[in-house]
Amino acid sequence: MENNKRYILAQRPVGMPDDTHLRLEEVPVPRPGAGEVLLKTIYLSLDPYMRGRMNDAASYARSVAIGEVMTGQTISQVIASNSAEFSEGDFVLSNNGWQTHAVAEPASLYRLDPRQAPISTGVGVLGMPGFTAYVGLREFGKPKAGETVVVSAAAGAVGQVVGQIARLQGCRVVGVAGADDKCDHVVKAYGFDACVNYRSDDFEAQLRAACPQGIDVYFENVGGKVFDAVIKLVNDFARIPVCGRIAHYNQTSLPEGPDRLIPLMGKILVKRLMLRGFIQSDHLELLADFRRDMSQWIRDGKVHYQEDIVEGFENTIGAFQGLLQGRNRGKLLVQVAADPTRR
Amino acid sequence: MENNKRYILAQRPVGMPDDTHLRLEEVPVPRPGAGEVLLKTIYLSLDPYMRGRMNDAASYARSVAIGEVMTGQTISQVIASNSAEFSEGDFVLSNNGWQTHAVAEPASLYRLDPRQAPISTGVGVLGMPGFTAYVGLREFGKPKAGETVVVSAAAGAVGQVVGQIARLQGCRVVGVAGADDKCDHVVKAYGFDACVNYRSDDFEAQLRAACPQGIDVYFENVGGKVFDAVIKLVNDFARIPVCGRIAHYNQTSLPEGPDRLIPLMGKILVKRLMLRGFIQSDHLELLADFRRDMSQWIRDGKVHYQEDIVEGFENTIGAFQGLLQGRNRGKLLVQVAADPTRR
Repeated sequence: MENNKRYILAQRPVGMPDDTHLRLEEVPVPRPGAGEVLLKTIYLSLDPYMRGRMNDAASYARSVAIGEVMTGQTISQVIASNSAEFSEGDFVLSNNGWQTHAVAEPASLYRLDPRQAPISTGVGVLGMPGFTAYVGLREFGKPKAGETVVVSAAAGAVGQVVGQIARLQGCRVVGVAGADDKCDHVVKAYGFDACVNYRSDDFEAQLRAACPQGIDVYFENVGGKVFDAVIKLVNDFARIPVCGRIAHYNQTSLPEGPDRLIPLMGKILVKRLMLRGFIQSDHLELLADFRRDMSQWIRDGKVHYQEDIVEGFENTIGAFQGLLQGRNRGKLLVQVAADPTRR
Repeated sequence: MENNKRYILAQRPVGMPDDTHLRLEEVPVPRPGAGEVLLKTIYLSLDPYMRGRMNDAASYARSVAIGEVMTGQTISQVIASNSAEFSEGDFVLSNNGWQTHAVAEPASLYRLDPRQAPISTGVGVLGMPGFTAYVGLREFGKPKAGETVVVSAAAGAVGQVVGQIARLQGCRVVGVAGADDKCDHVVKAYGFDACVNYRSDDFEAQLRAACPQGIDVYFENVGGKVFDAVIKLVNDFARIPVCGRIAHYNQTSLPEGPDRLIPLMGKILVKRLMLRGFIQSDHLELLADFRRDMSQWIRDGKVHYQEDIVEGFENTIGAFQGLLQGRNRGKLLVQVAADPTRR
């Protein structure tokens, strides 16, 4: 029988993680106990939040301990079952982490029906990233028809969904991304009204031109210079759901220079801004609504999505580095084993 | 007949305003036109927001123009009336600015009944500062019984009311002020559970000790080091209504040193904080509720207040400088003329 390959957090990264921090090892495939199932990973989801879990700092989620398998959601197939709930061959969403096999309790699994949607979407548009977009807009962004919504990391797993939901609500949607082809894609494939490349020399001027009525909602995924440019354009009563700060995840020290906290607080006061950090897992009471709405939107062709599937478990670290550098195109997945539902 | 004395904005201050920026001049008392009333100022309200109106920068309110009378609310008495609505001797809340006399339209006035409450409270606990406290807690702070509420500028016109309303809602209330006698006063007179002097060497340790359960609501009036200390102690889902930033109003440049915006945004995300700037005038639909609730609380002895009344219109600039430096004790007013209702 093949071994279980897995990535262990060997030491905490300072800056960009590499194979000195995440060590690939092989151990025997575990055996399921009474009531348990054995899962084989088909897709491993790679997401920016994982970088935070590698740190020791207190956060909303527990850090991965040194020596532990790196955490992550997987699309898996049941290959042995001691449970009446799941049969061999079933597809599930699980939290197996960065490994090829795992034993799981049935209660921790969410069944996926490949006839309803490609199973990979269970960690994408129909999974955590899509739900993050849904929660952030519905609970905190609260866009109204006619308002301007700006989305950073617009081509990413969350951003692409944010923009499309906001479009469905009658908003002007402006994306920000880090490459011209990403910008083209979000306009053509997702119907964004505009998208600006933040690496352009005249990024601020382009953003201003793309938002002639100012900005009412800014869905914050990145931080850095995008935040600075947006803040200059916000309207009174703008809402800023803070979902991520990928520009800062590998930062090892605070930049010198003026303290931007002071002008930000001034702007919050004068413009009566609302900033609100959030994580989707605080809002699971909305999950059923989300699954109903999003699967309907996909069936109706109102929401589209793009996946970036990297072949081969041994390419996981490189793929994750690329995610932190914005090299992915759409929702990033590692194909760990062949997907029997995909022809 | 006596002249109208008034302070004109002669030039825009950089840093602390003084008599080179605010010029005292005398002009003839104006005559009321048809339907108008002539008002004599009894009290001039001095409030931190006035510093912002002296600047040219865009804000939620129009700047005072060079050559214009400095803006401000007044408690005034009608001394001549061409209006059927007001008679000579009536007391009103008006926006006459920093001057001893003014002509006004009846529609711009709010009648004060000296039998209900001292007329000075019309710019204090029953006026804009009290309403600011009420709006900030009710709409944005939303304290729940048992939560810890921290109030900066706790002895000031807004802070003293914030703490008392939060106490009425069953919260633990911790004040922050800049003098030991202010701290003593908010504990003894207003029933705060504790109050910490931010000028103490061990301010952060004292604040931590005063908030053993962390901080759920921070009512932000000041910015600066108080904000920094609070942010270290906030609980998940803390709410931060941003009402003022008095520590920064005279600031002429941004401090060097690390950029505190980045760790703040990280904290917002990880702790799922809500920051919201607000101004009471966006919420006038709550004014009737406020007047009903607050006058009841005062009658029932549930809310107390302190006024700091500076005698003499010629002392206005010095009083305002003291306000920006925290030298006032309670709601600051200038007594411009004798108050016939006060014995």
